Formats: sequence, C-alpha cells, structure tokens
Amino acid sequence: FLGDGCLMEGISHEVCSLAGTLKLGKLICIYDDNNISIDGEVGAWFTDDTVKRFESYGWRVISNIDGHDAEAISAAIKEGCSDSDRPTLICCKTIIGFGSPNKQGSAATHGAPLGDDEIIAARKELGWESAPFEIPENIALSWDGKEKGEQLENTWNDLFAKYSEKFPDLANEFNRRMAGKLPNNWTTIADKAISEINDAGEKVATRKASLIALNALAPSLPEMTGGSADLTGSNLTKYEGSIPISKSNAKGNYIWFGVREFGMTGICNGLRLHGGFLPYCGTFLTFSDYSRNALRMAALMKIQNILVYTHDSIGLGEDGPTHQPVEHTASLRLMPNMSVWRPCDTVETAVAWKSAIERNTGPTSLVLTRQSLPHQVRSDEQISCISRGAYILSDSKDTPDIILIATGSEVALAMSAAETLTNEGINVRVISMPSTDVFEKQDELYRESILPSSITVRVAIEAGVTDAWWRYVGSHGRVIGLDEFGESAPAEELFEHFGFTTENLITVAKDALK
Amino acid sequence: FLGDGCLMEGISHEVCSLAGTLKLGKLICIYDDNNISIDGEVGAWFTDDTVKRFESYGWRVISNIDGHDAEAISAAIKEGCSDSDRPTLICCKTIIGFGSPNKQGSAATHGAPLGDDEIIAARKELGWESAPFEIPENIALSWDGKEKGEQLENTWNDLFAKYSEKFPDLANEFNRRMAGKLPNNWTTIADKAISEINDAGEKVATRKASLIALNALAPSLPEMTGGSADLTGSNLTKYEGSIPISKSNAKGNYIWFGVREFGMTGICNGLRLHGGFLPYCGTFLTFSDYSRNALRMAALMKIQNILVYTHDSIGLGEDGPTHQPVEHTASLRLMPNMSVWRPCDTVETAVAWKSAIERNTGPTSLVLTRQSLPHQVRSDEQISCISRGAYILSDSKDTPDIILIATGSEVALAMSAAETLTNEGINVRVISMPSTDVFEKQDELYRESILPSSITVRVAIEAGVTDAWWRYVGSHGRVIGLDEFGESAPAEELFEHFGFTTENLITVAKDALK
Repeated sequence: FLGDGCLMEGISHEVCSLAGTLKLGKLICIYDDNNISIDGEVGAWFTDDTVKRFESYGWRVISNIDGHDAEAISAAIKEGCSDSDRPTLICCKTIIGFGSPNKQGSAATHGAPLGDDEIIAARKELGWESAPFEIPENIALSWDGKEKGEQLENTWNDLFAKYSEKFPDLANEFNRRMAGKLPNNWTTIADKAISEINDAGEKVATRKASLIALNALAPSLPEMTGGSADLTGSNLTKYEGSIPISKSNAKGNYIWFGVREFGMTGICNGLRLHGGFLPYCGTFLTFSDYSRNALRMAALMKIQNILVYTHDSIGLGEDGPTHQPVEHTASLRLMPNMSVWRPCDTVETAVAWKSAIERNTGPTSLVLTRQSLPHQVRSDEQISCISRGAYILSDSKDTPDIILIATGSEVALAMSAAETLTNEGINVRVISMPSTDVFEKQDELYRESILPSSITVRVAIEAGVTDAWWRYVGSHGRVIGLDEFGESAPAEELFEHFGFTTENLITVAKDALK
Repeated sequence: FLGDGCLMEGISHEVCSLAGTLKLGKLICIYDDNNISIDGEVGAWFTDDTVKRFESYGWRVISNIDGHDAEAISAAIKEGCSDSDRPTLICCKTIIGFGSPNKQGSAATHGAPLGDDEIIAARKELGWESAPFEIPENIALSWDGKEKGEQLENTWNDLFAKYSEKFPDLANEFNRRMAGKLPNNWTTIADKAISEINDAGEKVATRKASLIALNALAPSLPEMTGGSADLTGSNLTKYEGSIPISKSNAKGNYIWFGVREFGMTGICNGLRLHGGFLPYCGTFLTFSDYSRNALRMAALMKIQNILVYTHDSIGLGEDGPTHQPVEHTASLRLMPNMSVWRPCDTVETAVAWKSAIERNTGPTSLVLTRQSLPHQVRSDEQISCISRGAYILSDSKDTPDIILIATGSEVALAMSAAETLTNEGINVRVISMPSTDVFEKQDELYRESILPSSITVRVAIEAGVTDAWWRYVGSHGRVIGLDEFGESAPAEELFEHFGFTTENLITVAKDALK
C-alpha cells in the first residue's frame, strides 16, 4: 500500500525502479490517491504524473480505479495477478475520512480523531447504526476467512506432506530455511573456517578478510542472499560461486542493487521478513547514512540483516572527507539492538561474520578497512574469547599499570606501543574490543576480568569520534580519536597527521601514567 | 550534472519532483548517460525510461543529444534557457573514458587510472600530441573567459552602482543578505526578544517556544526561508506573516517541502550556497535519519542551515517507538561541526535560535519537545550564560556534594530533585546543558567553574542513549538514560516507566553519594 507521502519519499524511487528492472511480476501495489498529506491538498507540493512515472519504471499501471469500489479493486488485483512479467500499480482515487460529512477530503482527518460530534454526523451520513466495535453479523460472516483459510492450509499441508515423503532432504532444507535456522553442522563449519583462517595468518585488509570469511561460510548457507550498492569490487561482497539475480534468473543469490543504499537495506529487511533468506548488503561505511532509517527499522523490528561496511576510516585515503567515516561507527553503536563489529584482522573478521550469521534477533554491522592489517597471534583461548566482544590480546606478567583499548586498524598500534612500554618496564595490558555491544552483554565477572575497576589508567584509541570511549577509560583515562572531519591524502600520512601512531600512543600512555 | 548513479539515488526523485511542481524554469540539468556505473553496464540494475520519468515530473526533456558534440549541447542549453516555465533535462549519450581504445565504454575507467600503456594508446587514438598538463594555445585561448568575464562583471557593477544611487537602502540590504550578514541592530532585536520571552515566562512545549522565537526574530530577517517536510502544524515552522512559495509566487519565504526530508535538507544547503537566504527546515527528530547525509555535507562544507527537530523523545507519546527518537540527539552531537541544542524552556529556546542564526560556519539542530515544559527562573547573569552551552541553574550555598546535569525536558526533574535533596541537607548543583558542543568550546576557566574537577559525584539525566554522558559524569558518576527503544503510551506513563522521574533521580543521586 502506498500513499501520497510514500510516493514523495526518495526510497519509493529506489525500490520501484529496481522492481521494474527485475520484472517482479508478483508485486502489486495499491496507491491510495486521496490528494491529501498532513500539510493539506498536495497540489502545492506534489504534482507528479504517477501513472507515467511508474510506466517509466516498466510497471503495468492500472489507473482511475474508484478506491471505494471493492469490486473494481478486486478486478484490478486479478488483472495485476495475470501479469507475471511486470509489477503492477493500482491507482485508486479515494476520499480521505470518507463518510465524515464536515471533514472528509481534508487533512483534518489524517491524524486527529474526528471528535464526538463528527462521529455522530458520520454515522448518520453512512447510515451506520451498530454500536462502536460491534460488527453486524452479515458483515462479520462475509469477512470470516477461517473456513476458507483452513481449507487452503490443509491443501498446502497435504501437498507439502507428499513432497516431504518424496523429497525428504529438500523438505527439511525448506523447513530449515523458512524457520531461519542454521544447518546442524554449522558450528563445525564455522569453527573449522576460523581455525584455517587463523593458520593462514594473512595480512590483508579486513574487507578482504570479509570475502575470505564469506567464501568459507556462504557455500554452506544457500539462503545467504545479498549484494552491494554498486560497489561490489570495493566491498568484496560477491563470493566465489554466488550467482546474480536478474530479470531472467530469480534463482541466484547475488543482487546488483545499483546506487540505492536505502532501498538495498530496506529490501534486505523485507527478504528476511519474507523468510527463507539470510540477507546481507554492502556499501562504504560513510554511505550507511543514507540507509539509517532502514537500519533502525531492522533494529526495532528485530530483523536479521548483515551490513558489510567497508572503507571504515580516514584509512581509505585520497577519496577525502566526503568518503571518510569519522562519526559512523560510534553512531551505529548508539542504535539500540544494532550489533557493531570492527575487527582487527582475518581471525576477528571471521568471528564477526560467525556472530552476525548466528545473531537472528537484529542487524549486525561489520566495519571493515580498505587498508591491510597485520595478523595477530592468539592462543586458542584468546580465539574463543573474540566472540565475547572484548578480550586480552596481550598482558603483562604483573598487575597492569595501564590498559590500552583498541579496535580494528588501531589494534596493531596498541600492540606495538605495548611492546615499547613493556621494554621500558611498564606493565601493559592490551584489550582488543571489536564489539562494544557484545562485550556489554557479558556477565560482570568476565567484564571485570578484562577491565578491572582497580586499574584506572586507561587509554582508548580508535580512528573515529571519541565520545563513547570515555565510558571505558573513566575520569583518569585518555582517548585518542578524531573529532573533526578527515583530509584527502594517502592513509599513512593521515594516520601520522591525526596522531594515530605508535609514538603518539606511547606519549599519551606515559602522560596518563603520570 | 547528473550521472546514472545520481538518477538511481532516492534524493533525485525528491528534489526533481519538487522542482517540477514549483516550475523552476532556471534549472537545467545535464544527464551524462554513459550506461556505466561502478559495477558495470547498468542494464542489469537500472532500466528506467528517464525521459518519461522526468516528463512525469513536469520537466522539459531534450533527449538523444550526442554528449561529445559541444555544439549540440550548447544548442540544447539555449533551448532550455528559452523555457522559463519548466526545469529542463538534457539527456546526453556519452562514452565513459572516451578515447581510451581498450577501456572506453567500460567500468574500468570509472575510478581507476588508465595506466601508462593505455594513456599512450589513448593519446594516439585521440591524436593528442601535447605534453601532459600542457594546453595548446588555440584551445587555451578559446577557453579563456577572462576578457568576456571582465566585461560582464563591469556591466553588472555599473548597473548595480546606478541601482545603489537610486535605491541606497535596497542596495545595502541586497549586499547584506548576499554577504550573509545580520542586520546592524540584530543583537538589540534578539536580546529584546529574549527578555520579553523571559518576562512572559510561559509554560509551553519547546516546539511552541520555537514558534514564539521565530515570530519574534524572523520578521527582522527577511532572508529567513524555510519550511517543513509536511509537518508544518507539528513542527510549528510557519511564523506569522510568512508567505508560501508556489509555482506562481517565487516571492515568498515558506516552502511546502512535502514528505521529502533528505531533499528538503539538501535544498536548504543549496539555498545557503546560492547566497541571500538563511534557510531552516523542520521535521520530527526521528526523521532526521533520512537527511543524515545532507546534514553531514552542511557540516563538512560549513553551510549554515537550521534544523527544527521536534518531538524529541519518548515524550511524544502514543505514536510509539518508530517515531520516538532515542539515539538521535546523541547521534547528531557526534557529527563534527554540527551544533546541537536541546533547550529546557522558552528562554533557552530563544537563546538557541539566536545562537543558530548567528552561527554562520555550519548547521545547527534545535531539538524540541512535543510536550509542555515549565519556565525556569533565572537571573540576568544566568540568562547571559545560556549562550555558553551549559551553566549553573541552581546552586548550593556551600561547595556542592553532587552535581546534577540535565538537558531539555529533564531539567525540571533535576530542579525538583535538587529541591528535595537540599531539604535533606545535601549540597546540590544543577547544571542545565542545552548544548554540549557550545560548552566544549568555552575556555577551561569557565568549564571548570561549571564542572569543577574536585566534585566527582555527578548524575546526568537525558531521555536518550547514555553513551556520551560518561564523559561528563566520570568514573564515579551515574547516567539516567534510555538505551533501548521506547514504547507506545502517553508521555507521563513512559517517563514513569523508563525512570525519568524526580523520585528515581533522587534515588540514583543518593546511591552515587554513598
């Protein structure tokens, strides 16, 4: 269902244009064309020829339907159903607040209650004599779909039972996917992949690490369906063997979304709500801004959707501040029920993917670098702790004098600063904290074991805004971050310029220790 | 200029639709139709009939221009100029990377350099023999607009000099507006308004307080031009005497933007860049998400743009969590060079408007309530300190035992909690902090006078996410906030449910004092 307001919003263009390109013949939209939005008659701000607009997208448009004539609408829907090669828009002329003699056709009926007097007048106008919330029996009967629904459900159940007998594996697989469950051997598959990725110990960008994880995990999950908003080669979202979906092939699992970030994210939400799909979508982290409302709806509606956000800081270099996220990672972390990972190497990236795939209660953002990051050496226990959001990547023999907290591309800086400080006789603990929200969900015992209250000298470093880190470093701590926009230069120069260097971290750490 | 990517993005729909409705005859767009975006040939994800689409918006469309034929483009532009009643789209067929024999017409030439070999091949293909960065004299001469430009500038200067002689006041006013300067008597006007608003001491919603401020200030600023994304009656953005702009009246100063938040914000950025306008625009705070990238561009490009964001918390009540901002105020504060105000009454709202109008180095968000808030009593000195972002609204006689920090709708809670605690013999200071970023810009002496380092027992309260407040309360502090989505209920019930009550604040304060 679409109203005038929906058709003014930009996202209506993004998704309806793509629906036309993909020839989504099953899609039927009903446009409630009542000529009114909250500010009044739309003529002063909305004069599109909507029929022509949707024809330009390749839709079938059925126009001039009386939206108060149920039979006319029913006939139009049937006509739409008969066209499997195009989406259909049914344009229904309606009167807003129909039946309210003094308010119908005006914005007064959009959001506000009619009021007692007008309700009386409307009942008279419509000849409606039943009490409020009382549905006359003949209407209730004609609306009652229980019997018909039961028949349809039984027919389906019989059909599916026969199918299950003949193709038990396929039926089980269908049930698994529709229930949104992972395969039985999922944990084995994922842990094996993480182990192999750890053994390989590659030094690559975490966006590349993301593709390595996808290549390892996705072939076992045929329900994984996603794509990129026209940045496939940069986001590295297309794994080996994934097959593009097109107007002539609906059987694929890769979607060329075009330059439509908001639409892409909303479509992936819809795929998950439909069932049977595990959606993911990619763009540059900065462009997550475009899709912010769809991210919020995923978080609010508890929709699983995996966001692959690459080029995650000034580390993207020469494209400059328009493309350099500064506030975005922090801003995503602010959204309730949005999980955010900013991994530091191939192993943390694989664990982040595993976590995102297993998290079926909301969206997960994977925040990934353009530039290469070194592999960190870990014990098995350390590897198993990554999934707890934060863990000790290196520790001092004695009680730490200072804790360094880092994420993503800054973890290596913390490790090298720790080495120098340790050589100078300072007891240093390094915490890698790829996911603050996952860490917050751990029990207090674990959190206290990582960040003991008694150790108050702490420095956090992250190539983004500082705000949220004060929570972890406390009154005696320091935060190295970036509370201004970036600049256009090679990544190494920018890191140097903005103080993301081992030397600066050492200086700040020593200052904090004073 | 528009590319294929631009035409896929939703904002192209919002602004081009409105341009058609408003019959912006001076607007000419050139569409670089090269059939390529980063992922390759667009046929798999973008098949709009763009000519038809723009005709549906009421544009004149000149199609099938050879984009490599300068004379054809020139003729099309002239044709576009001749039509003052409609915007014009000139569709130019082009070949991306034209002249590169092995790469032209492919995505390989979109972002990556051609490479040495292909540069040699392209020079050969194009018959180009000049050295890199050397422009042949005949071309340099034909491009040289200095003489023609000087003539045009002189003609304009002469004309304006004559105009200035005949209409000195109008000429001065024109110069003032184009320079983005405020009237000479601005400070007097603004301070008088604030004083009168303080004297009235009204208990109203801060969205209403915003309208009161607009009514007092805007008539002195005819360059103020703005509107709302179809929420005029809720955002209260239309002040007395403001005149709607329409297709038949460009002389107004109120824009019915329709349901187009992102487009609205971008249009206001453009109005400011054009010069002569002081733009503002309104929507619900939650819907700021739609326009986030335009906000970021305003911040990055240092564009003045005033955002009127009403319905700023769970206090909006029954519309529920989709409409209840939780993370938005914090998220706006994360954006470098975005100033954010969350005032607590009519006086702070008027000061926030004054600050926003005077801040010509970037955008300012005004975060306003739906619900009524009581007037706070202040001395003249306190009133003058509002513009410093945070100030002492009430203080203890002796050194404070505890500092309560609040913004907006929670300031009254802090005041009433302070009263109870004071009666129990506790020394309480209440800080109203309507703008954290403005406070951060004050000198250290002032900041230390408000939040002395020696007073470490602090409680912050704000009806939104807690993250950023840890910076102000430190390791020994407490934050009362909302790190989850809201619920649908009347405002009073929600404040009670989520712990935004005087009683809870007193409990938390006492706990912090232990």
